[in-house]
Amino acid sequence: MSRAPQLSDKQVLFLYFLILIFVGTILLSLPSSYSAGSLRSLDALFTAVSAVCVTGLSTVTTGDFSLSGKIILLCLIQAGGLGFITFSTLYLFFPGSRFSFRNTAIIQEYYGSEHIQKPKNIIRSILGFTLIFELSGILIIFPGMVRQGVEHPFFSSVFHGISAFCNAGFSLYSDSLTQFQGNPQVLGGVSFMIVTGGLGYMVHWNLFKKVSHPGKVKLRYHSMIMILFTFILIILGFFVFYLLERHRLFSDMNTEDALMAALFQSITTRTAGFNTVDQSGFTAPSTLLNLVFMLIGGGSGSTAGGLKVTTTFLLFLIIIKGIDDHGEIPFLRRRISKELLNRASLYFLKAMVILILSVFLVSLFETIQLKNNIGFLEILFECISALGTVGLSMGITAELSDLSQLVLICTMFAGRIGLFAIIIPAVSPESVYNIRYPEGEVLIG
Amino acid sequence: MSRAPQLSDKQVLFLYFLILIFVGTILLSLPSSYSAGSLRSLDALFTAVSAVCVTGLSTVTTGDFSLSGKIILLCLIQAGGLGFITFSTLYLFFPGSRFSFRNTAIIQEYYGSEHIQKPKNIIRSILGFTLIFELSGILIIFPGMVRQGVEHPFFSSVFHGISAFCNAGFSLYSDSLTQFQGNPQVLGGVSFMIVTGGLGYMVHWNLFKKVSHPGKVKLRYHSMIMILFTFILIILGFFVFYLLERHRLFSDMNTEDALMAALFQSITTRTAGFNTVDQSGFTAPSTLLNLVFMLIGGGSGSTAGGLKVTTTFLLFLIIIKGIDDHGEIPFLRRRISKELLNRASLYFLKAMVILILSVFLVSLFETIQLKNNIGFLEILFECISALGTVGLSMGITAELSDLSQLVLICTMFAGRIGLFAIIIPAVSPESVYNIRYPEGEVLIG
Ligand SMILES: [K+]
Ligand SMILES: [K+]
Repeated sequence: MSRAPQLSDKQVLFLYFLILIFVGTILLSLPSSYSAGSLRSLDALFTAVSAVCVTGLSTVTTGDFSLSGKIILLCLIQAGGLGFITFSTLYLFFPGSRFSFRNTAIIQEYYGSEHIQKPKNIIRSILGFTLIFELSGILIIFPGMVRQGVEHPFFSSVFHGISAFCNAGFSLYSDSLTQFQGNPQVLGGVSFMIVTGGLGYMVHWNLFKKVSHPGKVKLRYHSMIMILFTFILIILGFFVFYLLERHRLFSDMNTEDALMAALFQSITTRTAGFNTVDQSGFTAPSTLLNLVFMLIGGGSGSTAGGLKVTTTFLLFLIIIKGIDDHGEIPFLRRRISKELLNRASLYFLKAMVILILSVFLVSLFETIQLKNNIGFLEILFECISALGTVGLSMGITAELSDLSQLVLICTMFAGRIGLFAIIIPAVSPESVYNIRYPEGEVLIG
Repeated sequence: MSRAPQLSDKQVLFLYFLILIFVGTILLSLPSSYSAGSLRSLDALFTAVSAVCVTGLSTVTTGDFSLSGKIILLCLIQAGGLGFITFSTLYLFFPGSRFSFRNTAIIQEYYGSEHIQKPKNIIRSILGFTLIFELSGILIIFPGMVRQGVEHPFFSSVFHGISAFCNAGFSLYSDSLTQFQGNPQVLGGVSFMIVTGGLGYMVHWNLFKKVSHPGKVKLRYHSMIMILFTFILIILGFFVFYLLERHRLFSDMNTEDALMAALFQSITTRTAGFNTVDQSGFTAPSTLLNLVFMLIGGGSGSTAGGLKVTTTFLLFLIIIKGIDDHGEIPFLRRRISKELLNRASLYFLKAMVILILSVFLVSLFETIQLKNNIGFLEILFECISALGTVGLSMGITAELSDLSQLVLICTMFAGRIGLFAIIIPAVSPESVYNIRYPEGEVLIG
């Protein structure tokens, strides 16, 4: 008997997520999964896509799922998140068909020439890191949950820990993490999980090797850029949100809580999607920063969505420094190759096209359905949130018409899988490493 | 005595417009220029910048200027418009310092090898084309103005004709061209002027040569792209606006007027800025199309603003076809060079950064001033309108705080002069024309 035909990388990627969504929709549709009446098929599909794409937008209240439903949701989040980390790590490290080992230059950059790993080992290592991070996160959160006096503090810790590390943003509580406004243990633990989850596996691996082999392994260019810019973005958001909202949205809080709210908003907005304050209550400039942060997203090879920090960094370089005659940009004694710069531009352009199409269709369907109470900003916010798989909302998700919800489903999928698929064929395995500056290899997408 | 030091191209460009704005502000500030009380300095500055940058946004009613004020305004529009056509034509044709003749390849593409022109001749030819177009436009509009029974129909025809050809969008009437909704002569004449003005001088010249030397001169690649995509955009907008607004904003009109309103909106939105209907009355999807059209703008080497049709075309190519291994894109048997593609991406990125900054600052100042009746969409609309030097508004221009109006002044200037300045140094005079496909030279910026 003949073997089944080899699937291409893209086909494997799409198939994995489509099967997850299909199975998830069916499982969530079971009467035993939902404890508040019967769940519409569209809501089951929406929830499954949102979970698998680790978005966190929801047309129904997550708390209304039964325990088994919540566990299914958690499995979908974990499978979606882990799947995405794995695929992106493998594709970014082993571009070309079937994870071949042709592009050894980048692999050596991370693993050293004597440590070229097999995909199987990388997958095992990803699972290990995820388990360790999630366990430690859950341990941090648990005492805070007990202190808060929530029901089932252990399950709640597990759920929110995994949801945070996967940057999924699903919460068991209808107002997300609002009740934890004054609870630094829970917010701190969740923030820690979001940030580490959002850095991406390659950074974890690099840091782990650096710590375990002191003096022998250096911090790589990609890791350095990721850590530096993640830090800059968090601090920037923290200051802007605090300064703008101290006497507005945060006016009822004491100083400590307001500082914490500003920091948490800065961390959660880029891709996690938990919230401790009402997202429609921000001033206009903060709302704009929210939109920009949602678009930027987190790290490549992580569960975070959006353009990614490194892509934004490249776009920033293009704007500030300009492309030289070789189509490259020198930065910090590395040259950023023209392939990378072109991919970054392409990524941005495609994201913009998806966004414009998405906003157009949702606003079209909402106009047709005469739901004129939904404004343009709410729609823009919702679509950027879906595209960046963030999950924040100004509260219109459930109100939207069926067709608009279908558009959001497609936007989430496009933002997660479609945008990522851009970079699969774009990595040229034959790219030549010449002798000007060494190539400043950062991972985008 | 020693000569004054040579100014660089950029300095000449900035100086020309800054002097125009300075003189314009002073002239408009004269008590004799304004007949409705005294004009604030900020309003004079805003009007001068808006006129010189051919934007058309206004914090005061244009009709409130005295006759001499209106004539000053018209001179500013004409000087700004002509100045921009001249600078862009010269820079695009003679990149490098002081309009040198190094980049002969593009010049030959347009003029043929035996017709390399001197800048002086090009300026003379630009003046000639402008005069002919404006005169013929005024002749078309005049009978319509008489039929409409407006005061001073001749001056009104001259004012609106020049304002239309320069894509300035200033109107003597406080509701712009709303009263001409059912007047095909005026709207047709104005539309003709907008479209021809927006094609740009290089297209005019090419078409003129083609008609005057039949069989000898061919339609150039840039001209072809410009005409094709201008047509596609107009038709697209026409259909979308008509289908979406027939039973909404255009519901009170008869079919003929509704068709005309849709066509006029499609033509005016990309950069002219006249309006025949209330811009805040559109449905959400139409509003989004308005935003996109304002961002796209018109032709290079014309009075139109925005990203330009050709830049948008290149971005469209990048998205649809992708960049090949040489950093280029083959299209219609030409290859689009990597310099052009990089410039198009850079142009778009810079425009986005200016837009985000502009929206952030305006929304910040409006929040501080507690004018919360102004929404996010209105601000976004206003800033895109300023950036694309369109001049359409949802009606908030005069309501905005002084600081926000200053931001808009900077945005108009950046949208007109700043963005254009990007391409001055970026054109590499030494670019090599090799023998794959012939280079698909389009002008952007
Ligand atoms: K999320
Ligand atoms: K205009």
